[in-house]
Amino acid sequence: MLRIGLIGAGRIGKVHAETIAHSIADAQLVAVADYYRDVAQAVAQQYGIPVVTDNPLEVIQHADVDAVLIASSTDTHARFIIDAAVAGKDIFCEKPIAADLGKIDETLTAVDNARVKLQIGFNRRFDASFRRIKQAIEDGSIGEPQLLHIISRDPSPPPIDYVKVSGGLFFDMTIHDFDMARFLFGDVEEIYATGTNLVDPAIGNAGDIDTALTTLKFASGALGSIDNSRQAVYGYDQRVEAFGSKGSAANTNLYPDEVTISSGTRVERASLPLNFFLERYMPSYRGELEAFTAAVLHGESIPVTGQDGRVPVVMAMAAQRSLKENRPVRLSEVE
Amino acid sequence: MLRIGLIGAGRIGKVHAETIAHSIADAQLVAVADYYRDVAQAVAQQYGIPVVTDNPLEVIQHADVDAVLIASSTDTHARFIIDAAVAGKDIFCEKPIAADLGKIDETLTAVDNARVKLQIGFNRRFDASFRRIKQAIEDGSIGEPQLLHIISRDPSPPPIDYVKVSGGLFFDMTIHDFDMARFLFGDVEEIYATGTNLVDPAIGNAGDIDTALTTLKFASGALGSIDNSRQAVYGYDQRVEAFGSKGSAANTNLYPDEVTISSGTRVERASLPLNFFLERYMPSYRGELEAFTAAVLHGESIPVTGQDGRVPVVMAMAAQRSLKENRPVRLSEVE
Amino acid sequence: MLRIGLIGAGRIGKVHAETIAHSIADAQLVAVADYYRDVAQAVAQQYGIPVVTDNPLEVIQHADVDAVLIASSTDTHARFIIDAAVAGKDIFCEKPIAADLGKIDETLTAVDNARVKLQIGFNRRFDASFRRIKQAIEDGSIGEPQLLHIISRDPSPPPIDYVKVSGGLFFDMTIHDFDMARFLFGDVEEIYATGTNLVDPAIGNAGDIDTALTTLKFASGALGSIDNSRQAVYGYDQRVEAFGSKGSAANTNLYPDEVTISSGTRVERASLPLNFFLERYMPSYRGELEAFTAAVLHGESIPVTGQDGRVPVVMAMAAQRSLKENRPVRLSEVE
Amino acid sequence: MLRIGLIGAGRIGKVHAETIAHSIADAQLVAVADYYRDVAQAVAQQYGIPVVTDNPLEVIQHADVDAVLIASSTDTHARFIIDAAVAGKDIFCEKPIAADLGKIDETLTAVDNARVKLQIGFNRRFDASFRRIKQAIEDGSIGEPQLLHIISRDPSPPPIDYVKVSGGLFFDMTIHDFDMARFLFGDVEEIYATGTNLVDPAIGNAGDIDTALTTLKFASGALGSIDNSRQAVYGYDQRVEAFGSKGSAANTNLYPDEVTISSGTRVERASLPLNFFLERYMPSYRGELEAFTAAVLHGESIPVTGQDGRVPVVMAMAAQRSLKENRPVRLSEVE
Repeated sequence: MLRIGLIGAGRIGKVHAETIAHSIADAQLVAVADYYRDVAQAVAQQYGIPVVTDNPLEVIQHADVDAVLIASSTDTHARFIIDAAVAGKDIFCEKPIAADLGKIDETLTAVDNARVKLQIGFNRRFDASFRRIKQAIEDGSIGEPQLLHIISRDPSPPPIDYVKVSGGLFFDMTIHDFDMARFLFGDVEEIYATGTNLVDPAIGNAGDIDTALTTLKFASGALGSIDNSRQAVYGYDQRVEAFGSKGSAANTNLYPDEVTISSGTRVERASLPLNFFLERYMPSYRGELEAFTAAVLHGESIPVTGQDGRVPVVMAMAAQRSLKENRPVRLSEVE
Repeated sequence: MLRIGLIGAGRIGKVHAETIAHSIADAQLVAVADYYRDVAQAVAQQYGIPVVTDNPLEVIQHADVDAVLIASSTDTHARFIIDAAVAGKDIFCEKPIAADLGKIDETLTAVDNARVKLQIGFNRRFDASFRRIKQAIEDGSIGEPQLLHIISRDPSPPPIDYVKVSGGLFFDMTIHDFDMARFLFGDVEEIYATGTNLVDPAIGNAGDIDTALTTLKFASGALGSIDNSRQAVYGYDQRVEAFGSKGSAANTNLYPDEVTISSGTRVERASLPLNFFLERYMPSYRGELEAFTAAVLHGESIPVTGQDGRVPVVMAMAAQRSLKENRPVRLSEVE
Repeated sequence: MLRIGLIGAGRIGKVHAETIAHSIADAQLVAVADYYRDVAQAVAQQYGIPVVTDNPLEVIQHADVDAVLIASSTDTHARFIIDAAVAGKDIFCEKPIAADLGKIDETLTAVDNARVKLQIGFNRRFDASFRRIKQAIEDGSIGEPQLLHIISRDPSPPPIDYVKVSGGLFFDMTIHDFDMARFLFGDVEEIYATGTNLVDPAIGNAGDIDTALTTLKFASGALGSIDNSRQAVYGYDQRVEAFGSKGSAANTNLYPDEVTISSGTRVERASLPLNFFLERYMPSYRGELEAFTAAVLHGESIPVTGQDGRVPVVMAMAAQRSLKENRPVRLSEVE
Repeated sequence: MLRIGLIGAGRIGKVHAETIAHSIADAQLVAVADYYRDVAQAVAQQYGIPVVTDNPLEVIQHADVDAVLIASSTDTHARFIIDAAVAGKDIFCEKPIAADLGKIDETLTAVDNARVKLQIGFNRRFDASFRRIKQAIEDGSIGEPQLLHIISRDPSPPPIDYVKVSGGLFFDMTIHDFDMARFLFGDVEEIYATGTNLVDPAIGNAGDIDTALTTLKFASGALGSIDNSRQAVYGYDQRVEAFGSKGSAANTNLYPDEVTISSGTRVERASLPLNFFLERYMPSYRGELEAFTAAVLHGESIPVTGQDGRVPVVMAMAAQRSLKENRPVRLSEVE
């Protein structure tokens, strides 16, 4: 049984608490910390967690805690990872590690030195459809990978206050797609990013784009495209097409039911696609924690490493520079 | 909070225990009984249930038990329902109530006299796709209902030992479809059933059929068809088409992923349909218990009543007689 | 080159004339007759047909005519077949041969005696999707056939004047489905038909049904169902599902385009299904005439024989009696 | 009745001859020329064309010829257009007008001066699915256009001899997609093209690419992507997705039938997609000639103008330069 201490009991922290409490047979929550102690208290009460605190170090250093799950605000990730590594605890941390490569490298060094395990929360790798596409690539069903398309559109833009501090579309949204690209087709060498402000002028006024089309050149020689929009009015649009010398593997969106209604005016799906990430990706949150638990308990390798957390940040930096300078940018330029 | 006592900790009892423990916020298990005490003990330990016994009456009469969930063998349903009614406990019972109409009526009378609530476990009514079809009928999307098709095929036949005691295909398999027909199109007046033995000669030798096509005449004037097979080699096949004066509503099967793979020889789904009822209908087990819990706690009406449990047995009897005599049989004939 | 004389230049006659003129490389029209000479004249002018007449015998006996295509009114089919057989001409005739078995048998005897070829116009056998399903049955893809479903719904009812003289739904509409059932699963031994009047009271007043559900017992032991409605508001609904021991083959409807439109309120097909038989089955009209031309020119066997034209009439008679007497009727009863 | 003279009776010339002969009610072929007189003779005989020659000018200047259809080799297009314009004949010409902008402009000037009509053979604009997507854009169904995806993959590479002289992938293949992009989203201002040699080394040795991903910036501010491969092993892959502020419109590929086969190992389409352009786009060849005939006979505007023929050549030039210099190139740079 893996005894986990949770740091951060906000939206995503609660998702993880719920998942561990109800769906991970081999893990249990033994401590929870939140900047707001009453928030921690509420989660503790709901899931029967004995240790409650507003001091993350108390969780990290608690003797009953085998591993730490970091779901606090982004700017605290690196610090808590280092603290946990020093304390000899294995770590599951939400992405990104940090927005600064120097800080990321310092963090990863601490993890390496402490010889603890670190898994980054790129949950989409555990989505059933994307895993199935990955499998089709790995088992040779599509032959040599040649072209990759990622469609990744949110149902509606985040609040402008969030846009102002998120680091921009490439850092808070495309970063998942950069990881997906690497997961499926391997490392990228060069990025050409276009972006524009079509959804909401307020986003442009805040200095960000809301619509982007990004071209990837993979080290393998394959090519890729990422399509992002802050607003697909029909719902969360999350699709991948992997094309190769022997065929393709592609997914469609998920729906709350599989009903079609036909009438004198139309033939339509009875419902819109699952609306957002908590609906669409809920099983993948379980999947990543199952994998983390198994890796720690049974000494297996971590499926999403610190390096996997670092590279998408580099890719976002390259995309950002490409957009600014309107030219292809090699990842080596931003290292 | 609804405090539930579980009677029967076999396969379906465990499904309900898991569901209550993890997915029903307003309910908890406080007692469990099973004919095999160690089976009850194992479930109690897994879900932290304080009272464990091999005596169902102990559960039924326990002061901490508000409601009883009966998941024991079919031949015990009626007795435990009556015992629970006498004890003034609300009841959730797996189908069928009994195989004998006299026994069923005696049971329902006891429930009525005790003024307790009784819900029957026709879980498919809570499947998202079938609910959506029901909604399309109720909101007028398909107009006046005219034709109903139910495809209901298992992935593989049950063990021959089960076939010998199950009461036959109409009683153990089609009974769900009879309920679905009533759920969607209302009461049936006449049934013509055909059936044959095409899947496995051993089923025929055991006196049962494995393939059936049943025609329904609804009280409304609509017509319906139920297609059953004990073996659809591609997986669990559960589909409905409701057709009416203004259109139709129909569902497709569910798959573990939404991926299509194209190659030089074929364009195919990456996976077969969800293979059996525990996968396909798991969310519906939660749905029926949520509804039961809400009905008891908030005094709402029960969505699947004792009468809803009785009528499909009458329909199975009519189908059985129709098959034997090769003629349409009115439900009134078997009452 | 097969030189064809056309008898009957109404709606279906024009379809055949157009098909022969533009799509059948090895056939040409050399004569045309219609009860209304100006109708024949118009078709002759459009397609450059040299011989025009209001006398069918003139076409049948013309020295330049190798084969006769009979597309005149139903009550004249048998007479013109016999005349053509006596004249030694090969014959393509629209279904049905006649409404009376004695008349049909007399006709088929004349054809046999004359040793000419006779093909009946059950064009749906040449539809690409139904041929593909047939192929899947024949190549063993679905294993032993067990269950067959035919959905066959018109987009709107025919004029009441037609309903009054058509012979009824089983004879003018289901007859195609009876042929399809035989085409796919072989001979039928027993039929149980239910039918009702739900679409338009005027149809009921004219003594006919507009909604039917018919159960078939095949000689092979398989079971089948035919679903008919005079009105599917979303368009022409023509689907088949063939299910067997190793799987199933099923088709969906055809659409004028393959576009899906997603919006904030729905995900829908951009168009309704192809609306009626001239759109949906146009390629099958070419297919049947190509097959006829090849059979005559190259001495190959006829794909839809006189016997294939006779049996669906027997099936319609059995269905009619079943409906009237509300009991299953064996085909042998109506012979 | 529009009397058309055909210049060039090779593969595409025969397609047009067949289409005019059988499917265009208001047009007829009255003359045909081919460099190989016997080729012209064969086509003339098949379709009953009275004038046959190996001299294109004879067709162009023939008194019975109202309009000229140019389907000869690419390097002759400009010359025959000018000859026809001088002769006062309306013109339908296969794409491209010429590979050289100066030559194109000279040609368009001649057409303008002669006040004749000129339509370019971008037939895909007449494909039912792409027209439906265009309609969805024009009627506001997708709101303001924001992102466009074009997937355009051939089933197998052309012969290497063709690759060597075709002008390269952008000029012989992507040029259709450039036109489609303009047809749907309007003018493009800037192009960034990536391309590589993954399908067949022989193509690389011939100096061409076989895999390309091209990014478009539209004058409207929208973004677009074109995915090209010389080889999709599953068949001809021709899809578009148009995404905007109010939704999206997207098509799937076309299949020879609409059958799905399910078995114990897979659920698959019964056939692969239509294999190549003659199957997939045959109806669009009729559509473009119907539109041309109507435009000439009734004085309507031409749907694909000389300017529409010119711009995709400019786009291909920009793409070619972008690929060579690995930077985004504005169309104004190559004018």
